[in-house]
Amino acid sequence: MSTPLSQNSPEPVVTAQDPIRTSDPIPTPKAAPPDILRCAYMELVVTDLQASRNFYVDVLDLVVTEEDEETVYLRSFEEFIHHNLVLRKGPVAAVAAFSYRVRTPEDLDKAVAFYTELGCRVERRPEGFTKGIGDSVRVEDPLGFPYEFFHDVEHVERLAWRYDLYTPGALVRLDHFNQVTPDVPRAVKYMEDLGFRVTEDIQDAEGTTYAAWMRRKPTVHDTAMTGGDGPRMHHVAFATHEKHNIIAICDKLGALRLSDHIERGPGRHGVSNAFYLYLRDPDGHRVEIYTQDYYTGDPDNPVVTWDVHDNQRRDWWGSPVVPSWYTEASLVLDLDGEPQPVIARTDSSEMAVTIGADGFSYTRKGDEPDALPSWKQGEYKLGHQL
Amino acid sequence: MSTPLSQNSPEPVVTAQDPIRTSDPIPTPKAAPPDILRCAYMELVVTDLQASRNFYVDVLDLVVTEEDEETVYLRSFEEFIHHNLVLRKGPVAAVAAFSYRVRTPEDLDKAVAFYTELGCRVERRPEGFTKGIGDSVRVEDPLGFPYEFFHDVEHVERLAWRYDLYTPGALVRLDHFNQVTPDVPRAVKYMEDLGFRVTEDIQDAEGTTYAAWMRRKPTVHDTAMTGGDGPRMHHVAFATHEKHNIIAICDKLGALRLSDHIERGPGRHGVSNAFYLYLRDPDGHRVEIYTQDYYTGDPDNPVVTWDVHDNQRRDWWGSPVVPSWYTEASLVLDLDGEPQPVIARTDSSEMAVTIGADGFSYTRKGDEPDALPSWKQGEYKLGHQL
Amino acid sequence: MSTPLSQNSPEPVVTAQDPIRTSDPIPTPKAAPPDILRCAYMELVVTDLQASRNFYVDVLDLVVTEEDEETVYLRSFEEFIHHNLVLRKGPVAAVAAFSYRVRTPEDLDKAVAFYTELGCRVERRPEGFTKGIGDSVRVEDPLGFPYEFFHDVEHVERLAWRYDLYTPGALVRLDHFNQVTPDVPRAVKYMEDLGFRVTEDIQDAEGTTYAAWMRRKPTVHDTAMTGGDGPRMHHVAFATHEKHNIIAICDKLGALRLSDHIERGPGRHGVSNAFYLYLRDPDGHRVEIYTQDYYTGDPDNPVVTWDVHDNQRRDWWGSPVVPSWYTEASLVLDLDGEPQPVIARTDSSEMAVTIGADGFSYTRKGDEPDALPSWKQGEYKLGHQL
Amino acid sequence: MSTPLSQNSPEPVVTAQDPIRTSDPIPTPKAAPPDILRCAYMELVVTDLQASRNFYVDVLDLVVTEEDEETVYLRSFEEFIHHNLVLRKGPVAAVAAFSYRVRTPEDLDKAVAFYTELGCRVERRPEGFTKGIGDSVRVEDPLGFPYEFFHDVEHVERLAWRYDLYTPGALVRLDHFNQVTPDVPRAVKYMEDLGFRVTEDIQDAEGTTYAAWMRRKPTVHDTAMTGGDGPRMHHVAFATHEKHNIIAICDKLGALRLSDHIERGPGRHGVSNAFYLYLRDPDGHRVEIYTQDYYTGDPDNPVVTWDVHDNQRRDWWGSPVVPSWYTEASLVLDLDGEPQPVIARTDSSEMAVTIGADGFSYTRKGDEPDALPSWKQGEYKLGHQL
Repeated sequence: MSTPLSQNSPEPVVTAQDPIRTSDPIPTPKAAPPDILRCAYMELVVTDLQASRNFYVDVLDLVVTEEDEETVYLRSFEEFIHHNLVLRKGPVAAVAAFSYRVRTPEDLDKAVAFYTELGCRVERRPEGFTKGIGDSVRVEDPLGFPYEFFHDVEHVERLAWRYDLYTPGALVRLDHFNQVTPDVPRAVKYMEDLGFRVTEDIQDAEGTTYAAWMRRKPTVHDTAMTGGDGPRMHHVAFATHEKHNIIAICDKLGALRLSDHIERGPGRHGVSNAFYLYLRDPDGHRVEIYTQDYYTGDPDNPVVTWDVHDNQRRDWWGSPVVPSWYTEASLVLDLDGEPQPVIARTDSSEMAVTIGADGFSYTRKGDEPDALPSWKQGEYKLGHQL
Repeated sequence: MSTPLSQNSPEPVVTAQDPIRTSDPIPTPKAAPPDILRCAYMELVVTDLQASRNFYVDVLDLVVTEEDEETVYLRSFEEFIHHNLVLRKGPVAAVAAFSYRVRTPEDLDKAVAFYTELGCRVERRPEGFTKGIGDSVRVEDPLGFPYEFFHDVEHVERLAWRYDLYTPGALVRLDHFNQVTPDVPRAVKYMEDLGFRVTEDIQDAEGTTYAAWMRRKPTVHDTAMTGGDGPRMHHVAFATHEKHNIIAICDKLGALRLSDHIERGPGRHGVSNAFYLYLRDPDGHRVEIYTQDYYTGDPDNPVVTWDVHDNQRRDWWGSPVVPSWYTEASLVLDLDGEPQPVIARTDSSEMAVTIGADGFSYTRKGDEPDALPSWKQGEYKLGHQL
Repeated sequence: MSTPLSQNSPEPVVTAQDPIRTSDPIPTPKAAPPDILRCAYMELVVTDLQASRNFYVDVLDLVVTEEDEETVYLRSFEEFIHHNLVLRKGPVAAVAAFSYRVRTPEDLDKAVAFYTELGCRVERRPEGFTKGIGDSVRVEDPLGFPYEFFHDVEHVERLAWRYDLYTPGALVRLDHFNQVTPDVPRAVKYMEDLGFRVTEDIQDAEGTTYAAWMRRKPTVHDTAMTGGDGPRMHHVAFATHEKHNIIAICDKLGALRLSDHIERGPGRHGVSNAFYLYLRDPDGHRVEIYTQDYYTGDPDNPVVTWDVHDNQRRDWWGSPVVPSWYTEASLVLDLDGEPQPVIARTDSSEMAVTIGADGFSYTRKGDEPDALPSWKQGEYKLGHQL
Repeated sequence: MSTPLSQNSPEPVVTAQDPIRTSDPIPTPKAAPPDILRCAYMELVVTDLQASRNFYVDVLDLVVTEEDEETVYLRSFEEFIHHNLVLRKGPVAAVAAFSYRVRTPEDLDKAVAFYTELGCRVERRPEGFTKGIGDSVRVEDPLGFPYEFFHDVEHVERLAWRYDLYTPGALVRLDHFNQVTPDVPRAVKYMEDLGFRVTEDIQDAEGTTYAAWMRRKPTVHDTAMTGGDGPRMHHVAFATHEKHNIIAICDKLGALRLSDHIERGPGRHGVSNAFYLYLRDPDGHRVEIYTQDYYTGDPDNPVVTWDVHDNQRRDWWGSPVVPSWYTEASLVLDLDGEPQPVIARTDSSEMAVTIGADGFSYTRKGDEPDALPSWKQGEYKLGHQL
């Protein structure tokens, strides 16, 4: 193996424990949290069901498990539960549920106790909130998100071996959610109480935390907390097998003259090391296509902390993040189906400190702030004008 | 999505529970088993350390964490613990340990109690059996295998982001072990007591079980039990990111005029749905290169049972299995470093019932036994002459 | 760049000129040959048109340009001429034409003169022999093959950008033909007179030539001559973009329970360096899927001669060639539509000298003939029993 | 095959003949042009030879054929001639030669006659201008570019089979040059006289031609003419086998903290349909990495004309082109080694008509000019501020 060419290659700091601390914690309940297996599905409210169905079924090739005039139940190729995504027709584009599967039916009792102690609104429906799923608990969590927990679910055919049905961009798993919330350290503390573990985060030297990734299943995340005005949904992510599958999705969008659904990427993330693409659906809901992060299942899995000014943190190739990616996100609903009010972030915004007149990003630690080559200056300098 | 072309595509039977039953069970200990995280490393005894180092380091590009005149400690690109493979010089090619990482230091006490109750020989070394690893328990398990359990381990750099070091066939994770044992149902019962869960298996209509795959981490397996004369080690498997990485390994072996290290594949497994390649190292130890099986972490993950006569069970493309793959395997050592005696399998052998004069395989259920096209007849019919 | 690990890596001999000489030449015509651009299409006679259509359209995803009750005209994704493959219903499975496109309409006059001088039967049809193609010349060439030449052709949409239509195994170009003929040197001499240039060949130390690859367009071949009983058609080959596309075809055949259509591969060729797969269609016609050979367009492109005993010549990974691949091939028709009689090869057969009791193959030049490891012995030794 | 989802997918206009006309033609010489095989190598003058060697050899893994203190001769993995790129130390970063290989030695006489008749400065050196190459002709062509023609060349090992040397981003062929010139139609007319054929171009409804692609070998181009201040060199392009190889180059640049060498991409071109990446070397010379365009070798290969306002023309996924890509390019040298003066383009600039306040781009023909979604507005609108 050859000697590395650079002394200062991968610069994020690796620590044994989550380095995020909050000064405004949500009290830890005495009740034990439910044993969450994984993020399982998202329920999206869409304003034009046919347009959304076209996007998710005809363009992204998700599989329809079941549908009616109001709702489409979709799954990915390797899934064996009823759905990973529900499209429900409604007046306002929003997220109705971030749904997690728990290990046992009894974990629903734990969920009720956990959130009741937190003073949250809790609703349990033995018949479930969506088709294909039984006894379920939905809550308005302390951050304002509609979280769901369930165990009972209808099994359907796992299409993993059905290569006669695969398309070039086949989506094989739901990988993760991503949520926007104003106070990331406060959110992390609550999620850790819920049993999540931080795998990576973005901070600055002053101690501001801009984002954190947290997992139950042993991937980089089941959900992430992104600092910003919230509660809002930043994106939902599906996995492909290989990188060429993601490229095939872009190519197909081009062929359909729908390339303006591409918001950012494809690229390689610094955080998570995954290959990615961000799309916007007909309502503007953001969908990530994602592949090849790493195993995180050991309890002492090293936590990776990235400097917010490291321009390879969000894109390993240094491609700037488009401003809309920082500022736009989907509303989330309360248990009555009304949009939750959005609270402004008061900490520094990642966009402000990295793009444009107020911020800077470096490729190599120690570079002068104005060291960008000519072809990068426009990309990084113009952000403040938006 | 188009209509499937075939009515009888993927034919394995899917059930909710492991369908394997034994009439000769090892009694379940009252002591709780240790909480195993994952298969972590294998210790291989090799007869020519330099030849083995060439194979694993110069050809397969595993990373040397540490080495001395007797031992080489190797890891894969995404690993953060000290090693996934130990090559130790010795007089007889064999396996000294199948090593699993457990969740907590206290799980070692559980391992001691569990195996002591089973009447097994148990040895605990606070300083570990290999470099980089602390307090460890080794046992001669009820099947005769040298199993190890540890928690304390030295962390090393996770090279996931070090693309300056990647080679075209980069190995990124240890994926699983595979063990040969005469009585598969008896082995499965013991492994379930140890906390493993069956994901797939191969049976026949008469109820003979030929092999079973079992997991702790949520992949198809951490180890598998393959029916045959045992205890022996069938293979150790490393994962790549994509299929082309596996092809690159074959291409490199060709360029080095070492292609006779390829025993079987590359191909697509039926069981596990992974893309695979089997190599033989300079001592004949078998190494699998493997990519893209599926998530199995839900407790009700469907169990897939394949018919032993389905010629797509071990290779989805119907390529016959070379006889050596069925018959050859590595010796395993007892805790004194002496080879364990090998006990003959008394159940039917998978090779006998599927290849040659005594057996048959079909591509489509219901095909006549002699329905093979001319180009398959030689491959499937000649096995009995070996 | 690291030092190569092996001193005797790639061993074929590279020479400046085609090293093949014949003692029984077909006289070179005084008439200039037509200026051939490339192999353009094959006309296949199939006995069950619906079954063949299913195979080429539903399984291999070739595009139907046009069809009627007797005939299906197919093309690949990047083609802009009317077709690359014609399936025509007939009583005997055979090849009706190997068709080449020539540079100008006037090259048809040259083709007539060239073959007339050779004493061949020649038929010219201003309206063409198949739909979509104009003025054409068909001949029974000196080796007994039905060769066609045309220039005028209907243009159709080049679907290169139509990623909405691509499937995981999309075929993008017709790459080459492969013909079986008893006397390879004699065939090569004639093809060189026709304007082809040898790029690679297989010989032995005694001077027997087993096969030769020849090109017009700057790839490794537009056609190859394979030694055997002939005239017969060995295979027709289509190109994919990447290796995973070929794997996808195998995976799909598995899902459809049609894996017995796979005859050989996938693998990496030594000759041509391409990644390959051989299928057999419902009539047994052989189709190769092929990707990534190299540029050969310079007049002094080095000629690569492989030793017939080098077991990496046909598969770079040393996988043995299945006997049917050597012995089975399709009949070809004369201009009346009658099968040409097949003449036996009198030179040594490649299969006999490389597999089984009469032959041997080596991985490394200088290896003992019996140096095969256990897992290769069965594969290479049993061939003679067929 | 499913029905296309969009009626207006791929919109470029396809015609049988080059639709570019000039009102200011360079007279066609009576002398026949040389028979050019392909673009063969570029001679780059670099200001820091060690830095450039690091970039091309240690980062991009080109193979060193030969080197001395002033010069490094590099080739790609499938090349058999001495070099595809020469790095020569000099005071000003520039291009010393765009070099083409011709079919025969006699073609050099034709080149001399052709350019002498054009009134160009011509210099012939029987010993060649660079090592490894014999008799050569260099000219200052009518557009001011230093063009070279040669036939005699030293053969070196074609490393195509040397997979022991391949790296994840291996470059396998020189694919094309790209030149900046003020008057594209005038340049095209001269290049057609030289024997090139147009494969694709970019125009607007007013008849302005912004760029044209032209080929000798049957790919989309051996060189392209890009409208802008010139003569300058826009880029030199090398091919990889697959798309993941290009991604691997980006990943490696990230690992080396050299990601600011990435100027644009990776992406899919509209023009050429190839997958691409643009890098800038230590002197700012632009290098493209490129894979998978299509066969163009038929004389009636359809010409594809793209609308300059089609935002999928240069990137099929609609990613905007960074302004530096339009404005920056390398100087070219005259035969005395002095930089050629740069003449300003007087036609509209592609950047001005497509980005920012003066221009617009559409995803779907007929879209309103302000139809861009929020996430595209910043990217397309801010260009004018640079």
